[in-house]
Amino acid sequence: MKKGVSDAVIRRLPRYYRYLDELHNKGVVRISSNTLGSRLGITASQFRQDLSCFGEFGQQGYGYNVSELRREIGSILGVDHDHEIIIVGVGNLGRALMQNFHFDDAGFSLGAAFDISPELVGTTVAGVPILDMAELERYVRINNPDVAVLTVPQSVAQSTADRLIGLGVRGFWNFTNMELTSEVEDVRFEDVHFADSLLTLSYRITKRG
Amino acid sequence: MKKGVSDAVIRRLPRYYRYLDELHNKGVVRISSNTLGSRLGITASQFRQDLSCFGEFGQQGYGYNVSELRREIGSILGVDHDHEIIIVGVGNLGRALMQNFHFDDAGFSLGAAFDISPELVGTTVAGVPILDMAELERYVRINNPDVAVLTVPQSVAQSTADRLIGLGVRGFWNFTNMELTSEVEDVRFEDVHFADSLLTLSYRITKRG
Repeated sequence: MKKGVSDAVIRRLPRYYRYLDELHNKGVVRISSNTLGSRLGITASQFRQDLSCFGEFGQQGYGYNVSELRREIGSILGVDHDHEIIIVGVGNLGRALMQNFHFDDAGFSLGAAFDISPELVGTTVAGVPILDMAELERYVRINNPDVAVLTVPQSVAQSTADRLIGLGVRGFWNFTNMELTSEVEDVRFEDVHFADSLLTLSYRITKRG
Repeated sequence: MKKGVSDAVIRRLPRYYRYLDELHNKGVVRISSNTLGSRLGITASQFRQDLSCFGEFGQQGYGYNVSELRREIGSILGVDHDHEIIIVGVGNLGRALMQNFHFDDAGFSLGAAFDISPELVGTTVAGVPILDMAELERYVRINNPDVAVLTVPQSVAQSTADRLIGLGVRGFWNFTNMELTSEVEDVRFEDVHFADSLLTLSYRITKRG
């Protein structure tokens, strides 16, 4: 694999994966890059160029085998790595993710959630136990989660991240709407900025002139 | 304004806006495109090129006035249009948005939320009333919301969208993780795909080779 694949390419891969997964579930066996591109609103050459960052796929003139390409893009994304994930903060958003989000489809096992509320600790949501924040150290040392979902209040967002980084967690799915930072080199923050998405919609519906 | 600004440019604008807003709140008065670019992880020329889709900004050699540029990008995004928005479906995610999301920062007024649950109807969350779905027609005809947040179950996602489109709603902030469609020309769906974001993180933390 080439080093330094651009951020833009990496951000497009999940959409390709999602679309191929959909085709696969519909029983589609083969698809051309032209058809793929037009469904995804990009050119066939863009699609081929993005894939070329990761190797050779498909066969000239024959299109792609949907199931194979889905598996290969999934593998590039690490879907086959069975990453461990925990949720820190079981407010409405944490609970919504526990109840509705299919972590397993993205290759993640949700092992536990953490909160400080005595009413929540000891209960389960969708089969996942909610543990006391005081148990975080012990749990992380034993289970080594790859990623923590941060759904804590902003006031404790950075300190919670720091605590987890100190325990060896390197991936953060950040829903706090705060920019978090770390001096530790291999820490990755993936921020979910709801506002960016709503502003994009705002642009599209705004009547001008 | 040029027609046909690319999707990629439009998707970058909210980040520029968010960053300028942050600088503005910190009291920063002026910034060069070099500094802006390096903070945002893009080149200065990319930044200037993106802006050039919408007109002339800044003054050669003097950088940008932060407050002005923030206002201008906000205006491009429609933040100054005071769009009306409603939430349809007050499950955990709908409730999380009502409690934590700053609709007003994005230029939206959240007028009401709708649900079918008798326990929820008639209550308020963060000062916003939850109305019965049966009142949707009446409410929409009177208040003409520009956007509906869809936080309903997947089984009713398309039918709820169709019902709202029939009432004249044209913008949808879609959290259902389903691709929704409409034959009506000016309908815009903005999908929030949590999975795409987690898969991007998965790519970044996956150890290879």
